[in-house]
Amino acid sequence: MEKQQKLYEGKAKKLYATDDPDVLWVEYSNQATAGNGAKKEQIEGKGKLNNRITSLIFALLKARGVQSHFVRQINETDQLVRRMTMFPLEIIMRNVAAGSFAKRYGVAEGTELAQPILEFCYKSDDLGDPFINDDAIVALRLATAEQLAEISRQARLINEKLTEIFQAIDVTLVDFKIEIGETSDGQILLADEITPDTCRLWGHDAAQGQIEHLDKDLFRRDLGSIIPAYEEIAARLEALAQRESVTI
Amino acid sequence: MEKQQKLYEGKAKKLYATDDPDVLWVEYSNQATAGNGAKKEQIEGKGKLNNRITSLIFALLKARGVQSHFVRQINETDQLVRRMTMFPLEIIMRNVAAGSFAKRYGVAEGTELAQPILEFCYKSDDLGDPFINDDAIVALRLATAEQLAEISRQARLINEKLTEIFQAIDVTLVDFKIEIGETSDGQILLADEITPDTCRLWGHDAAQGQIEHLDKDLFRRDLGSIIPAYEEIAARLEALAQRESVTI
Repeated sequence: MEKQQKLYEGKAKKLYATDDPDVLWVEYSNQATAGNGAKKEQIEGKGKLNNRITSLIFALLKARGVQSHFVRQINETDQLVRRMTMFPLEIIMRNVAAGSFAKRYGVAEGTELAQPILEFCYKSDDLGDPFINDDAIVALRLATAEQLAEISRQARLINEKLTEIFQAIDVTLVDFKIEIGETSDGQILLADEITPDTCRLWGHDAAQGQIEHLDKDLFRRDLGSIIPAYEEIAARLEALAQRESVTI
Repeated sequence: MEKQQKLYEGKAKKLYATDDPDVLWVEYSNQATAGNGAKKEQIEGKGKLNNRITSLIFALLKARGVQSHFVRQINETDQLVRRMTMFPLEIIMRNVAAGSFAKRYGVAEGTELAQPILEFCYKSDDLGDPFINDDAIVALRLATAEQLAEISRQARLINEKLTEIFQAIDVTLVDFKIEIGETSDGQILLADEITPDTCRLWGHDAAQGQIEHLDKDLFRRDLGSIIPAYEEIAARLEALAQRESVTI
């Protein structure tokens, strides 16, 4: 597989074409951002940790019946994925109140939700990724009603399987953001990444009333280096994949 | 029916108990507010116009099979309604992009929507009435899934019937906000008010590219007095009710 011209540069990764029109080359960078890019930093080692973590998670999900755009990991920072047309949606699943949800509805961070909550934001930097509901997604033609039903079904299934995976490594999956796209032959698939940049992950070793953050909130909230936390997540997922004989 | 102690004072009306525990006395005031109370004014004649308009609309809806809390109009500014436990939700239906929706999603005001959009906001002055979706309403126990399905069904039906009513008086129903509650015997019913304070109503007499506002946007946007517009809406609804032999 040959890496060709750059197609897109995001906040934490770069996308390149390859000699296969259906396959893209993803390079994970060391950049961390928060507040829609208002805070920005290079963090040595982040790119290779996220590339490894998302590869492990895509493989662990596949072993549980969830397909994704992931093809294979090529080297420390790079992986191959299927080319997709993305829905312009940030797809958020929440199990515990935290972050913008806790603030928006005046619910204490850490409150367990009576049922998982699926939320959508309309991906638009100009508009600030506004919260959107199902009716508006269909009326603004961001997805058809049928596509949206399939996206929602997959998001809830992914939450179920991801919760299982993180439970197996003693971590609470508080919430996460995914993106979903469509292949050229109309298959709707999980895409983008699943890493501590895009999940809230709480460890179980915190003192009473404290939260052990194992995710990008360490960076967002200036609580310390993210690297030891990301390394811990990677090591535990690595051990889980070995126990389950999952290959990446 | 006897007017007893005041139970609640809102932005545009006051609620009193009566000698019947299942009936409340509503007094429409002349106060107009915008921007969650940031702009506030007394407008002579507004109370009686809104009392009459909402009475006419509740009666015209009833003639089309939509029940509500409305019992009867008592005098120019007052009406009797059934006592309800309100869901803490602002229920918004949109047919044409306008106001906060147009701004939030970068859609030109006046764009017809591909299908009606139902939106909910969580009624909370402290939180600024945040936008909320179905999952969060159920998870935060603002309504059960069954109640929410019934609220949504009624909201869409009310939009259909209200659109008919306003078409019959040559007005476009752009969007509106309602509230819904539950009676002591568990009946889910339309409540609050339906007036040019709570609907966007566009007339058909504007010059090319202009909007003929017949609603509170005249006040919100400092476009002129609301009274002639509210009088026009009241007069046309009055004539419609007469044509249909609907009594209030």
